[in-house]
Amino acid sequence: MIPVRGYAAHDARSQLVPFQFERREPGPRDVQLEVLYCGVCHTDLHVARNDWGISQYPVVPGHEIVGRVVRVGSGVTKFKAGDLGGVGVMVDSCRSCENCRDGMEQYCTVSGVQTYNTPEKDGKGHTRGGYSEAIVVDEDFVLKVPANLDPAAVAPLLCAGITTYSPLRHWKVGPGQRVGVVGLGGLGHIGVKLARALGAHVVVFSTSEKKKQDALRLGAHEVVVSSDPEAMAAQAGRLHFIIDTVSANHDVNAYLKLLRRDGHMVLVGIPDQPLQVNAMLLMSGRLSFSGSGAGGLAETQEMLDFCGQHGIVSDIELIALPAINDAFERLHKGDVRYRFVIDLKRSA
Amino acid sequence: MIPVRGYAAHDARSQLVPFQFERREPGPRDVQLEVLYCGVCHTDLHVARNDWGISQYPVVPGHEIVGRVVRVGSGVTKFKAGDLGGVGVMVDSCRSCENCRDGMEQYCTVSGVQTYNTPEKDGKGHTRGGYSEAIVVDEDFVLKVPANLDPAAVAPLLCAGITTYSPLRHWKVGPGQRVGVVGLGGLGHIGVKLARALGAHVVVFSTSEKKKQDALRLGAHEVVVSSDPEAMAAQAGRLHFIIDTVSANHDVNAYLKLLRRDGHMVLVGIPDQPLQVNAMLLMSGRLSFSGSGAGGLAETQEMLDFCGQHGIVSDIELIALPAINDAFERLHKGDVRYRFVIDLKRSA
Repeated sequence: MIPVRGYAAHDARSQLVPFQFERREPGPRDVQLEVLYCGVCHTDLHVARNDWGISQYPVVPGHEIVGRVVRVGSGVTKFKAGDLGGVGVMVDSCRSCENCRDGMEQYCTVSGVQTYNTPEKDGKGHTRGGYSEAIVVDEDFVLKVPANLDPAAVAPLLCAGITTYSPLRHWKVGPGQRVGVVGLGGLGHIGVKLARALGAHVVVFSTSEKKKQDALRLGAHEVVVSSDPEAMAAQAGRLHFIIDTVSANHDVNAYLKLLRRDGHMVLVGIPDQPLQVNAMLLMSGRLSFSGSGAGGLAETQEMLDFCGQHGIVSDIELIALPAINDAFERLHKGDVRYRFVIDLKRSA
Repeated sequence: MIPVRGYAAHDARSQLVPFQFERREPGPRDVQLEVLYCGVCHTDLHVARNDWGISQYPVVPGHEIVGRVVRVGSGVTKFKAGDLGGVGVMVDSCRSCENCRDGMEQYCTVSGVQTYNTPEKDGKGHTRGGYSEAIVVDEDFVLKVPANLDPAAVAPLLCAGITTYSPLRHWKVGPGQRVGVVGLGGLGHIGVKLARALGAHVVVFSTSEKKKQDALRLGAHEVVVSSDPEAMAAQAGRLHFIIDTVSANHDVNAYLKLLRRDGHMVLVGIPDQPLQVNAMLLMSGRLSFSGSGAGGLAETQEMLDFCGQHGIVSDIELIALPAINDAFERLHKGDVRYRFVIDLKRSA
């Protein structure tokens, strides 16, 4: 076994503290990564605090991992020691259900293994994430990181990037379309960059007047402050697609009104309360209210390659692992532009 | 002007009573129909009772009309006196917005004119529907009725038929697909027939154990009583598409769970309260919760022709117009199999 130091939450209320645990020795198909960078996703905070009632303590969060390959199993062909590798929200799946066969492992209906807080496939304990110095992952679940991008700023692409890229691609967002991005946070700011690079006209909706200039800098063509009724009304019936990145409860009908006929509004944030949907609004334009979760492995690699071609990375603020509790506090208040990334080599 | 006798609601609480009013003389493009049959749609009841707060009294309901052409304008080419004609939920639209140009007049964004309770295009009063002995409609909004079908049982196709046909076609329901029909009422019973004729495997969900045999007779392959948790669980993740015809408030998440990846659940009933949608459920399989309203004119004609080819009509109970208040009471209680149709030639 490999001894590993990381940070863990031991219950819903306490701060994360240093935690030592063990990883398996790499099997024939495994890659052992020295974790260099790990993004801080809102999900990490939700699970650390047991907001969804599914937390298995101790929780070692982190599913936006970029690392250096230090060892590979005998059967590994994709990676060799010294390569960069990325790990996102999954580290395994059943590989045989229809969704896995279709390359959509994120919707595995049998035994999807999340990067943390999920039972290990061998039944021994729960997975532990990237708030730690090393991780061992089947090579099929390790992504290649484009060499031209800053690896620290690539880390958030592994969750925030694919979570916004996948629906933009699935619903064929591109030139000639007006696309709304609701919420300018970790997901939203990457969604803006991706939608822009895909050729769409991008309209950002933010509660904060203060983010207006930032939204334009990130690539938005228009910015609407969602508390301004006139500005909202001016968008009514004009959007082909909306990606809604807000995980707090909010009025989704205010955005459904902005869709054209056959428009889709896709949730990628995870509100913990049911959302109130106006049925008559859906009927008035054959609208769809949809959800999308991360992306499959092939699509995640496609996203990374796309970001490499377009020079897209996350806007980040680097922190050391011991600063994670402060970062969680600031994340909770929305005080980050736009993603904390832990530099595992920094001690403070 | 043409004097016309019908039945009207004069306020939200009173019964419908005899009401005399006038229709315009047919213009060059108008068709004058003697109303033979008019279906009794749940919308009629909602509008008579002002459930949606949009009623303009006096309300003459009725938008499932089959009539005999008695007079045509000089420019009318599609109809001549003696023909059968059908009128559904619309009698006009702007004809120039993108949706109208796309043949989806039901989503007209400028000036769609519903068959009743909508301002007339000339601004003079509100439209009045088929609970009356005659109606005058632009020929573009009059459908041809297949000669081989019982015209009384065709009437409900003009709303209930197209409202279920349009989403089944739009979302490409066909062979190899498992399709759920939620609610076995006016819309649902036609939805079952249409989905079966389109080649799908049809699963009916009903609150009523008593409708089981009926559902099978109508064409369902399976019937699930929705209050049976085991029967519901057995359908989890197995349906490609669900058409939800229930207009009362209900737990839509219980049905969203039954969808496969990328499944659509489409509302065609009109609940008057917002529906609670579980966001995490949508994300777990890239599910869509959608709405659909009636259908365009070309598609309505396609539906009627399809019904002609497959011998599909509504199961009806014929009533005389003076019996409408009793029919409303029974409709409110769900006591009809499956559509009341007013025979305008019957006096009692």
